Amino acid sequence: MATRVRKKKIQPDNAQIVLAALENGHTERVSDILGLLHPADIARLLEGLPPEQRHPVWALVDPEVAGEVLLEVSEAVRLDLIQEMDSAELVIAARSLDIDDIADLIPDLSDEIIAAILFALDKQDRQRLDAVLSYPEDTAGGLMNVDTVTVRENITIEVVSRYLRQRGELPEHTNSLFVVDRSDRLLGILSLSRLLTASPAARVSQVTEHDLIKFGALTPDKEVAEAFERYNLITAPVVDENGRLLGRITVDDVVDVIREEADREILNLAGLREEEDLFASVWQSVRNRWTWLALNLVTALIASRVIGVFESSIEKLVALAALMPIVAGIGGNSGNQTITMIVRALALGRLNPENMRKLFAKEIGVALINGLMWGGLLGAIAWLLYHNLPLALVMTAAMALNLLLASVAGVGVPYFRNKFGRDPALGSSVLITAITDSGGFFIFLGLATLFLL
Amino acid sequence: MATRVRKKKIQPDNAQIVLAALENGHTERVSDILGLLHPADIARLLEGLPPEQRHPVWALVDPEVAGEVLLEVSEAVRLDLIQEMDSAELVIAARSLDIDDIADLIPDLSDEIIAAILFALDKQDRQRLDAVLSYPEDTAGGLMNVDTVTVRENITIEVVSRYLRQRGELPEHTNSLFVVDRSDRLLGILSLSRLLTASPAARVSQVTEHDLIKFGALTPDKEVAEAFERYNLITAPVVDENGRLLGRITVDDVVDVIREEADREILNLAGLREEEDLFASVWQSVRNRWTWLALNLVTALIASRVIGVFESSIEKLVALAALMPIVAGIGGNSGNQTITMIVRALALGRLNPENMRKLFAKEIGVALINGLMWGGLLGAIAWLLYHNLPLALVMTAAMALNLLLASVAGVGVPYFRNKFGRDPALGSSVLITAITDSGGFFIFLGLATLFLL
Repeated sequence: MATRVRKKKIQPDNAQIVLAALENGHTERVSDILGLLHPADIARLLEGLPPEQRHPVWALVDPEVAGEVLLEVSEAVRLDLIQEMDSAELVIAARSLDIDDIADLIPDLSDEIIAAILFALDKQDRQRLDAVLSYPEDTAGGLMNVDTVTVRENITIEVVSRYLRQRGELPEHTNSLFVVDRSDRLLGILSLSRLLTASPAARVSQVTEHDLIKFGALTPDKEVAEAFERYNLITAPVVDENGRLLGRITVDDVVDVIREEADREILNLAGLREEEDLFASVWQSVRNRWTWLALNLVTALIASRVIGVFESSIEKLVALAALMPIVAGIGGNSGNQTITMIVRALALGRLNPENMRKLFAKEIGVALINGLMWGGLLGAIAWLLYHNLPLALVMTAAMALNLLLASVAGVGVPYFRNKFGRDPALGSSVLITAITDSGGFFIFLGLATLFLL
Repeated sequence: MATRVRKKKIQPDNAQIVLAALENGHTERVSDILGLLHPADIARLLEGLPPEQRHPVWALVDPEVAGEVLLEVSEAVRLDLIQEMDSAELVIAARSLDIDDIADLIPDLSDEIIAAILFALDKQDRQRLDAVLSYPEDTAGGLMNVDTVTVRENITIEVVSRYLRQRGELPEHTNSLFVVDRSDRLLGILSLSRLLTASPAARVSQVTEHDLIKFGALTPDKEVAEAFERYNLITAPVVDENGRLLGRITVDDVVDVIREEADREILNLAGLREEEDLFASVWQSVRNRWTWLALNLVTALIASRVIGVFESSIEKLVALAALMPIVAGIGGNSGNQTITMIVRALALGRLNPENMRKLFAKEIGVALINGLMWGGLLGAIAWLLYHNLPLALVMTAAMALNLLLASVAGVGVPYFRNKFGRDPALGSSVLITAITDSGGFFIFLGLATLFLL
């Protein structure tokens, strides 16, 4: 079982020192520094290096620590590092890890290397690894650690204490024992702090907490993370459909899930498919950003065709060309504000059909006020620039209407996507911008054609 | 000491049942249901209710639980709920909380109520509250819990065990004791699992971990969260400048920091100043979204004036009006992709002057490929639409140049903001869009004016 030794925090200068030593050929000095660093800090150091420097440094990392480092680096860098290792090194790296951590690496390894790792494990660990791998990565089963310490209900605290002393070191991050019956069904939890403060003569059954939060093996990791956050959990058991204990989830793995979810949301908002290795090849980066740009090209083309319809109006009154992007732009912004609120409310389960109507009414109110206020201001500016009162009035009306459209779409798009079982966050922002762009051009140029020409 | 009882998870239907019971005047039934719910679930229920239903339900929440609920709701809803409580209720609510949790509520309370709460605390707790309040909210000191269990180095494990049994219940989420010298200076940590597996005759000094991660009281909470994530911590001690133990931070509070940071980033990206109460008044919402829209209005006006300069060109060749938003739009998207990557790399400390040059070269490469590829495609489309080869070539050149501009600004803006000590995330997205909009219009219309007219 791997115990992670906490070592000194990397100073920002360490990276510079390592690089300088490497350039001067002092590989021993590099090894020394790497030996002092926590795996997480080695990971950070490697992520900040371009491949031609990353690979020689990686070659100097102690194979016993390499597994931990692989866990800590981002997916993109992990693949790069694994390609630099031969199968013997990978087996050593994997063997130094906990079973659930090995399971996290498996998807990135070749079949041949997986076979070599399995061969190197003892029978119990192989079975454990099988157990973890039999669940999808993004479920409680995929997240759990299988090395639990279990006790029976009818023994005394004294006996439990003696058992633990004989057993020796407990698995990492153990803060409670699991109380099970003879067929391994989970009865409750005995926290270490309870164990330490209870009378030695008391029976386990007297101090067990029975009212606890547990997860089925197939619970999605997002739900697990939500429950950990909501109920301030540190550890929680994972059970099978018969209530038998399978493993435990600890909060440090959940923190990673929370971080990944948040990162994914931010990357998606910016239209990046996934996190990039900072020093990925140009071609890899182009591919990562491809889909989004293509999608945007299509929506931009549609907006452009809307303008195309009104080309004769623009020819007659060229001020329209200068003013139309304002109407479209502010609409897009306002729509994105609304959508962010709704997506969050949906994610937190705060929306239901009843309060939707109220919310809708509120957003329309906000849009009307903003539309008249900013629209009025823009109308005034348009009047100052072009001394054309009807044009100023059209500007105000178009702004108000486009903000209304933005609020209706900002509430409606994520709501209906969610209702029909789609992720309300994904792509909603593109959709809303497309609606407010094309809509804004159409409203503004349409009103202008009707009333000004 | 507050012990949080874990209760059944709220089913989505519970909200409906509560509302139905409330409407039918069955307040007792509502109280019964509320009594079964975990405070976090009551919080969620309240957040999903508009004020006219939220207030009567809130009045039925047990005052003993009300404090926990206040901690769990979002800031906006918390203020709404506090306004509904009189000072006696607030004192009851506060007294049921841990000291560090009371400290979290203090900023939202009036001076009069704070005085009443202080009066209701015993002397030790009042001193503890003072200690927590003396540090800013967003530091390790503001985050820490002051109820630590300390032991001395020279006693045996046996004595520690006896002491703990006499002491009774340990503070929530205690997974280790702190080893201090006679002047309270922190020497190391004794984890409960170590305590349980060590020989009773061993001295504390023999099993203490000395190599540990600790925080100064003024360490920013962001750094604390980063260290917890990076080193997979569950608890960490907080010390003063002389190394004396002040308190401990547990991971559940850190999870909240991580979540808040991520939320803030997402809200800022969408231009919302802070999280809104879903049912805030229209006026409150308008104010929350005001700054961003105003800022955008300014940048949109600038872009509009850039177009204004070229009005005579557009009059001569109206196709320019239809094509120009495409150049600006794709540039904005591409710039936002780059900026998101750079902001993340900066946040994770992966950037330094050395690798910046490489990164810059890479982004320029990506921009050139994307510019020629998408620019070429758009040129082809422009040719199909307008049968004007020079126009198509200008389109391609303008796209390539604007994507170059986007990549230079996408790397440069966050890099220099960071270099001059500003938050690279905040507002970078507005700035980049402003640059690629105005820049895109200028490049496209400028090239057109030079070569087509």
